[in-house]
Amino acid sequence: MGENGAKRWNFGANEAVEESCSQNVRYFLNLLADNLDRNDGRPVIPLGHGDPSPFPSYRTDPAAVEAVCEAVRSAKFNHYSTTSGLPLARKAVAEYLSRNLSYQISPDDVHLTAGCHQAIEVLISTLAVPGANILLPCPTYPMYDSRASFSQLEIRRYDLLPENGWEVDLNAIEALADDKTAALLVINPCNPCGNVFSRQHLQKIAETASKLGILVIADEVYKDIVFGDKPFVSMAEFSEIVPVMMLGAISKRWCVPGWRFGWMVTLDPHNIMKNSGLVGSLAHVLNMSTDPTTFIQGAIPDILGKTKEDFFTSKLETLKECSDTCYEEIKKITCITCPYKPEGSMFTMVKLDLSVLEDISDDLDFCCKLAKEESLIILPGRSVGLKNWLRITFAVELELLKDGLVRLNNFAQRHTKKQP
Amino acid sequence: MGENGAKRWNFGANEAVEESCSQNVRYFLNLLADNLDRNDGRPVIPLGHGDPSPFPSYRTDPAAVEAVCEAVRSAKFNHYSTTSGLPLARKAVAEYLSRNLSYQISPDDVHLTAGCHQAIEVLISTLAVPGANILLPCPTYPMYDSRASFSQLEIRRYDLLPENGWEVDLNAIEALADDKTAALLVINPCNPCGNVFSRQHLQKIAETASKLGILVIADEVYKDIVFGDKPFVSMAEFSEIVPVMMLGAISKRWCVPGWRFGWMVTLDPHNIMKNSGLVGSLAHVLNMSTDPTTFIQGAIPDILGKTKEDFFTSKLETLKECSDTCYEEIKKITCITCPYKPEGSMFTMVKLDLSVLEDISDDLDFCCKLAKEESLIILPGRSVGLKNWLRITFAVELELLKDGLVRLNNFAQRHTKKQP
Repeated sequence: MGENGAKRWNFGANEAVEESCSQNVRYFLNLLADNLDRNDGRPVIPLGHGDPSPFPSYRTDPAAVEAVCEAVRSAKFNHYSTTSGLPLARKAVAEYLSRNLSYQISPDDVHLTAGCHQAIEVLISTLAVPGANILLPCPTYPMYDSRASFSQLEIRRYDLLPENGWEVDLNAIEALADDKTAALLVINPCNPCGNVFSRQHLQKIAETASKLGILVIADEVYKDIVFGDKPFVSMAEFSEIVPVMMLGAISKRWCVPGWRFGWMVTLDPHNIMKNSGLVGSLAHVLNMSTDPTTFIQGAIPDILGKTKEDFFTSKLETLKECSDTCYEEIKKITCITCPYKPEGSMFTMVKLDLSVLEDISDDLDFCCKLAKEESLIILPGRSVGLKNWLRITFAVELELLKDGLVRLNNFAQRHTKKQP
Repeated sequence: MGENGAKRWNFGANEAVEESCSQNVRYFLNLLADNLDRNDGRPVIPLGHGDPSPFPSYRTDPAAVEAVCEAVRSAKFNHYSTTSGLPLARKAVAEYLSRNLSYQISPDDVHLTAGCHQAIEVLISTLAVPGANILLPCPTYPMYDSRASFSQLEIRRYDLLPENGWEVDLNAIEALADDKTAALLVINPCNPCGNVFSRQHLQKIAETASKLGILVIADEVYKDIVFGDKPFVSMAEFSEIVPVMMLGAISKRWCVPGWRFGWMVTLDPHNIMKNSGLVGSLAHVLNMSTDPTTFIQGAIPDILGKTKEDFFTSKLETLKECSDTCYEEIKKITCITCPYKPEGSMFTMVKLDLSVLEDISDDLDFCCKLAKEESLIILPGRSVGLKNWLRITFAVELELLKDGLVRLNNFAQRHTKKQP
């Protein structure tokens, strides 16, 4: 330190941060955006992230918008929030989540968060006691990986099996877990794979977790966003077997990720999480964290209560048409294969066959050149844990999706090895 | 682990969390609320935290409310935010903060956050590299202490000196700092002390920090909330001397803490923070954190641009009247003394003289009994780092404040030792 030393200032980069962020969706989206050709007159087609909110077919319900305006105009919700959120909003979320459920969720079990992201931040940092580990899927939604790595919570990865419709590799779970394994993450409907877990499979996961003494984090941010043959079943149905921490948000179902309203719900009928001290620690971490916007909390009873079923039905029809189109068009593209037809969420995973391509080194190279040459953004599989795969979202306007898949096909053909 | 062992489940309380939260404002507010007598018919008077937004005299500007309604109705701001916030909002904040400043802030220097709280979370967790320490004031705004403790960033506390108008003890700073000291926190206008730092004192702080090689965190969430003789001077004026990380929000000046919109601004004309890697690490942490609500970002140009000066002037007149009343009424209460007349923020610190009280063991006991007997909430000084002091906010309706100070006086008299 000091004028004459080599080191004048005491602060700098945080190396743990650099490592944690190496596989972050937004990091890769920023990187791909940097590869876009500004001279390409065509619109950029964003198949890289699950946010259809800017498109007319996915516009949110006017009742939700009016609920927000009414809440902010009432001047009753400008104040700071309380520890786990306003009672009226916690009650509304508990009632909403209890519909079609055999289990009645209490408002006391509901902790409101600034989107599902903040639920992940709070939960992961609370679970990160020295020596603990967590079981995360591969492929994954990498925010969990980033936050676990940043909090020094050891990550152990289990596979989702494409040949089994992306089901959880339960044998791997048993082999990976030890008495320091705090939790197992299950994302259903699945981001990034687009599958939906059956009731039977969810029960097996719950039984396995119970046997191992670990809680299940059920990321249900895509709750009810299903358009295949399987119905959505909440992990809440198995909370008699194992304690479940359910995460969710209005982001996807209402197409308003920018409103930043989510929740973390403790499904704990035998008070296992409560008596262990975990619930108390979570409340403490919430006490020293930011909150969801108060007037959105004030609007939540109306948002959840007044949105008509038609709104959801129409969105699901759009998504199904997009998903089907995506699946069929992908079949025409020789360098990629989709192992499983999507039945939920907004994504599908496709495998890249590099051997048929002549000048593409890997998934990242593929996506960077695709961005540059076709103004098309698709996420490289490495960002979700599977190198040389791609994650494609189909949740955009149908015509834009079709255009994007034509561009993808053109790109693939242009880079395919010529026949000898 | 297992059915027969003592330990059936692998998860539990996080002890680091319990320690970090032992001096959290919300923790103490919850504790005091538990002491309220539900049979007391009088309204609870909340002099415990700085949130006057529920009161008519502090209602926010209608132009701000309409800006929010317009943004949410436009359907242009339902999408996810971008890394440091929407460019239009970053630009508006940069322009707003550059008014009356000799330094022009660039939109690239502005990182938008979900209130000042999230700025604290992101900044502290980024600074917390192994072995680093931070200099925090005593008394303090304890969110910094909680987050530093939770991130294992060593805390070294320097005093604010009541006998010098709560100025920073600069000698202490020099004695405490070493080459692992990353940052020094300065809150101006000051929470909890209610003082405002002079230009000369701010310059001395900047020079001291520069000499020691540490950056200054300038918490200016109470920016421009001054009503004494001293004008508000931003630490930004001294960024030629030392790198400054300025934190702020619309929470206090617009009386909308529930809107959760704040910022972290790097004042770094010599690119010291940028070249050190700190700014890059901050962007990475923002990439894996929640964001401020997108439509509030969309409304920010109008919120900052269309709120009339009259709105602020009228709020400051109200605050000044409340502050003056508070200061005068406190003089009449024998067991407390206020060492310095407040000239900014929404708080004052008063010293408790336990020797004149007959059945009060300490500040927490005082505040718990006060809540129970008088339905009056005042924060025990220990929650901000000074045991046997009290932090009182005067930012409520004047009549309510007067009623609260009468209750405080009645309580004090009732518990005063009887003359022999």
